[in-house]
Amino acid sequence: MTGTLTIAGLGPGDEALITPEVSAALAIATDIVGYVPYVTRVPPREGLTLHPSDNRVELQRAREALWLAAEGRQVVVVSSGDPGVFAMASAVFEALEDAPQWHDLPIRVLPGVTAMLAAAASAGAPLGHDFCAINLSDNLKPWPLIEHRLRLAAEADFAIAMYNPRSASRADGFARTLEILKEAGCGERIVIFARAVSTPEQRIETVELRDARPEMADMRTLVIVCNSTTRQVGRWVYAPRQVR
Amino acid sequence: MTGTLTIAGLGPGDEALITPEVSAALAIATDIVGYVPYVTRVPPREGLTLHPSDNRVELQRAREALWLAAEGRQVVVVSSGDPGVFAMASAVFEALEDAPQWHDLPIRVLPGVTAMLAAAASAGAPLGHDFCAINLSDNLKPWPLIEHRLRLAAEADFAIAMYNPRSASRADGFARTLEILKEAGCGERIVIFARAVSTPEQRIETVELRDARPEMADMRTLVIVCNSTTRQVGRWVYAPRQVR
Repeated sequence: MTGTLTIAGLGPGDEALITPEVSAALAIATDIVGYVPYVTRVPPREGLTLHPSDNRVELQRAREALWLAAEGRQVVVVSSGDPGVFAMASAVFEALEDAPQWHDLPIRVLPGVTAMLAAAASAGAPLGHDFCAINLSDNLKPWPLIEHRLRLAAEADFAIAMYNPRSASRADGFARTLEILKEAGCGERIVIFARAVSTPEQRIETVELRDARPEMADMRTLVIVCNSTTRQVGRWVYAPRQVR
Repeated sequence: MTGTLTIAGLGPGDEALITPEVSAALAIATDIVGYVPYVTRVPPREGLTLHPSDNRVELQRAREALWLAAEGRQVVVVSSGDPGVFAMASAVFEALEDAPQWHDLPIRVLPGVTAMLAAAASAGAPLGHDFCAINLSDNLKPWPLIEHRLRLAAEADFAIAMYNPRSASRADGFARTLEILKEAGCGERIVIFARAVSTPEQRIETVELRDARPEMADMRTLVIVCNSTTRQVGRWVYAPRQVR
């Protein structure tokens, strides 16, 4: 039997946000490959082998998945959210580039609801106008590049969705991020801290940027710095469609 | 019975990309409100009233939906893709702001797979690194603001997802967009033209920006201008995770 490799997004946490396309792929899989907490979201069943792995071994994990597919297995690589947004799809293609013998493997990428969309929906419509998404982790890019992008994003008046704002090993970056945006004149912009979106622990906090504190974010938080025209109506935050 | 208003995203076209959360909302709705082609995607059934409306009447449509919910109906406003990305959610909150009597209505926003995620998945992983999303329509914002954002996005080396690149009434904007990006030094960047993604008419074209022609896009096309480090491996396009 020909092996296949499917790179699938499980959405932000709620089962009801997993697309039927992804559910169908999981139902016929023989092997699930991914970071421990995401693999744990797939219910075990007979004939299904789970291959959970640690954080920060994306390339090894991608090679394992390709190898299993080349052996004839029906492999699904799982990410949370969308697999193409700061997740496993890039790692798989990177591994594929180094392995010409696997270039003909049948590969599919199945999109999912990425965290910023679920966070935005919980808060209202802060991404209703032009926006950008920046991964604040400097594990794979130099910190000055992140600062450069933050300044340009502020100048463009994009809403800014920030992934991986803060971890134990990177406590300072997010504090610096808030400083840079204050310096760039964004002190009055609304900031949404959306933690554990779509899970029972979901918590949404909204403050002006000048009142935001670094400890409001952790690795389970998606931060959206709204654009300058964004307004509040009752408990909702939204970016007006019209900008003059 | 208390009325409710749900603002839901139907995904880019394929039924298998509609989340179970949205399907459940559609199943208990009494009224579906939206732009004709999206309302048409909801199968008629007894007890369900469809309220299709024309393009460019978003605010009227939003008021109609709020009014129906205030009357006690279970209303679902449908958008394609995600309702918060260049779609109906902002219009509903705008209408709500003008109608304090409706501020206590139970409102929910249900996220969906927005076009850029499905387009990216079809092509590989071009949004695997920092990116932005720009609506190229100047119906609701001045064209110079779009140019300003394009230049900053190029300088930031964001991948740029472009919604509504071109219509009969706005034939010139996308040609100008390509010129601006060439002037900004993006001539060698890979551009993905993803038309009618996830439908039977899907067509994915990949060229270097200097070879892109305006007529490669229409209103059903999502354009992704990849970042400068993006590479091709076989038929796939991906943004490497690491940038030095």
